[in-house]
Amino acid sequence: MDAVSRIERTLTAALDMAGGPGGPPLLAAAMRHAVFPRGARIRPRLCLAVAAACGDDDPAAANGAAAAIELLHCASLVHDDLPCFDNADTRRGRPSVHRAYGEPLAVLAGDALIVLAFQTIAIGAVASPLRLPALMHTLGRAVGAPHGIAAGQAWECEPTADLSEYQRAKTGALFAAATVAGAAAAGSDPEPWRTLGEQLGEAYQVADDIADVFSNNTDLGKPVGQDRALGRPNAALKLGIEGAMKHLEALAKAAADSIPSCPGQAALRALTMSEARRLLPRDLSQRAA
Amino acid sequence: MDAVSRIERTLTAALDMAGGPGGPPLLAAAMRHAVFPRGARIRPRLCLAVAAACGDDDPAAANGAAAAIELLHCASLVHDDLPCFDNADTRRGRPSVHRAYGEPLAVLAGDALIVLAFQTIAIGAVASPLRLPALMHTLGRAVGAPHGIAAGQAWECEPTADLSEYQRAKTGALFAAATVAGAAAAGSDPEPWRTLGEQLGEAYQVADDIADVFSNNTDLGKPVGQDRALGRPNAALKLGIEGAMKHLEALAKAAADSIPSCPGQAALRALTMSEARRLLPRDLSQRAA
Repeated sequence: MDAVSRIERTLTAALDMAGGPGGPPLLAAAMRHAVFPRGARIRPRLCLAVAAACGDDDPAAANGAAAAIELLHCASLVHDDLPCFDNADTRRGRPSVHRAYGEPLAVLAGDALIVLAFQTIAIGAVASPLRLPALMHTLGRAVGAPHGIAAGQAWECEPTADLSEYQRAKTGALFAAATVAGAAAAGSDPEPWRTLGEQLGEAYQVADDIADVFSNNTDLGKPVGQDRALGRPNAALKLGIEGAMKHLEALAKAAADSIPSCPGQAALRALTMSEARRLLPRDLSQRAA
Repeated sequence: MDAVSRIERTLTAALDMAGGPGGPPLLAAAMRHAVFPRGARIRPRLCLAVAAACGDDDPAAANGAAAAIELLHCASLVHDDLPCFDNADTRRGRPSVHRAYGEPLAVLAGDALIVLAFQTIAIGAVASPLRLPALMHTLGRAVGAPHGIAAGQAWECEPTADLSEYQRAKTGALFAAATVAGAAAAGSDPEPWRTLGEQLGEAYQVADDIADVFSNNTDLGKPVGQDRALGRPNAALKLGIEGAMKHLEALAKAAADSIPSCPGQAALRALTMSEARRLLPRDLSQRAA
C-alpha cells in the first residue's frame, strides 16, 4: 500500500474510534473537519519514508507514529487559528474549525486530537510494545514544553522572545519527530535521524516564509502577508526571493547529506531533494526545478 | 513515603522537566499555576490507594500514573475556565490561569499539560514498559473522545445533550481511570477496578452538586450557585439536601462493596468510606460523620 493510503486509513480509523457511538456528534465532526480532507501530509509521509528506509519491519507501528504526528499537527493548527492567537477565518481554503463549529468545540477538538495522537501511537505499537516508550518520548518532546510546538507558540506571549528557539520549536520540532519516530517505529536507533528532520523543518519554514511573501490566498487556502503585518520573523523578507530560495536549496542538501547509512539511503536522498522543491508555491517550484 | 508526598514529588519533577532551560518562562509559570499549590489531589490519591491495595510492586509506575491523572485533571480545569466556557475568574481561591496569564497562555498551558501527562506516565513506567500500553489506553479513554473529559465538556455544545453521558464523561471518566490505572500500574488485572472509580466519581459529582447549592464562595475558592444560574443538572437541586446526602452515602457504600479481592481490601474499604465523607463541605461532613 502506498504511503498516502496508509496514512489516510490510519487517520480514518483513529477518527472513527474518537467519533464512536454514544459520543457528542459535533465534537466528532469538528475533529474530522480539522483532519480531512487531507493537506500535503508532509510530516507523516516523511515519517513513513524514514521507516521504509530503515526496513519497516512493523508497518502498523510506523502507521501509528505517522498518523499521530499528523493528528498533533492538525491539533496545533486548530488552536493556532483561535481568536486569541491568529484569529484565522480560513484554513486549507475552508472555514477554520472555530469558524465552522464555534470556539468551545475548537478548543475541545484540539484537546481531543492531542489525546487521540497518543492513543494512535499506542494502538499502532501493539505488536512492538517495547518501541512505545521511545515513540512517546519523541512525540512528547516535539509538542509539549519546553521545546515543542506548545512552547514555540508560547514564545509569542513572551515580552522577550528567543526567535531561533521560537522557529525551531514551532515548526522544526514536529519534523524532527517525524524522522526520529519513523526510525524508532522500525526498530532502528532513532537519534541519528534527528538532523534530517531538523534540516527539513527549517527548509519547510523558509518555504512557508517565501509563500507568505510571494504567493496569493488562492494558492495557499490561508491568508498571506501575515508575517509582515504581525512583525514576525521571515527569511524571505530578510533575504529576498533569490536569497531565500538559495537558502532552501542549501538546507535540502544538508538534509539529504545527513541521512544515516541504511538500506534505503539512496532512494530517501532523492525523495528529500524532490520533496524540498515541492514545498515551494507552484510557480516558484517550476523556477527551481 | 506517604501518598501526598509521592504525588507532589512526581508532579514537581514533571513540571521541572516542562519548565526546563531554554523554554518560554511564562508558559512554565502558567503550567505551575495550574498545578500548584495543591488541591485535594483526590484522583491521584485514589490511584495510589488502589496501587497499594494491589501490592504496589513498581511504585514509580504508580506515581507516574497518579501524577498523569492529576495533570489531565488540571489541564481540563484550565480549559474549562476559559472565557468561551465557564469564563471563571477564580479557581482554588486564586485567579484562574487565563486571568493570571492571558487566554493564549491558558490554551497552551492546557495543551502542554495534556502532553506532559502522557510523558509522565511513560517516564514512570520505564521499569515496566509492558504496563505502558494499558496505562495509555486507560488515560486516553478517560480524557479524549467519545467518552472522556473532552467529550463530556463537548456535550454542553450539543443542541440535544445526553445528560447521563455528560455527567459520566465529565467527572466519572477520570475517577474510573484513577482506579483502573492504579491497578494496571501495579501489574494487576485493571478492569475489575472500574466500578470503584465510577461509583466514587458519581459520589464526587453529588458532593460537588451539594457544595454548589449549599456552600459559600469562601469554602470552595470558586463561584457557587453556577448550576442553577446556568440551568445545569444538579442532584442537590433535584433531591434536596437530605436526599442528596443519602444518595452520596449509598454511592460510597456501593463503591466500597465493589472493591475486588486483594491484599489491601479491608484498608481500602475503610478509606473509601472516610474519603466519601471528606468530599462534603466542612459543616455538612461533620453532620454526616
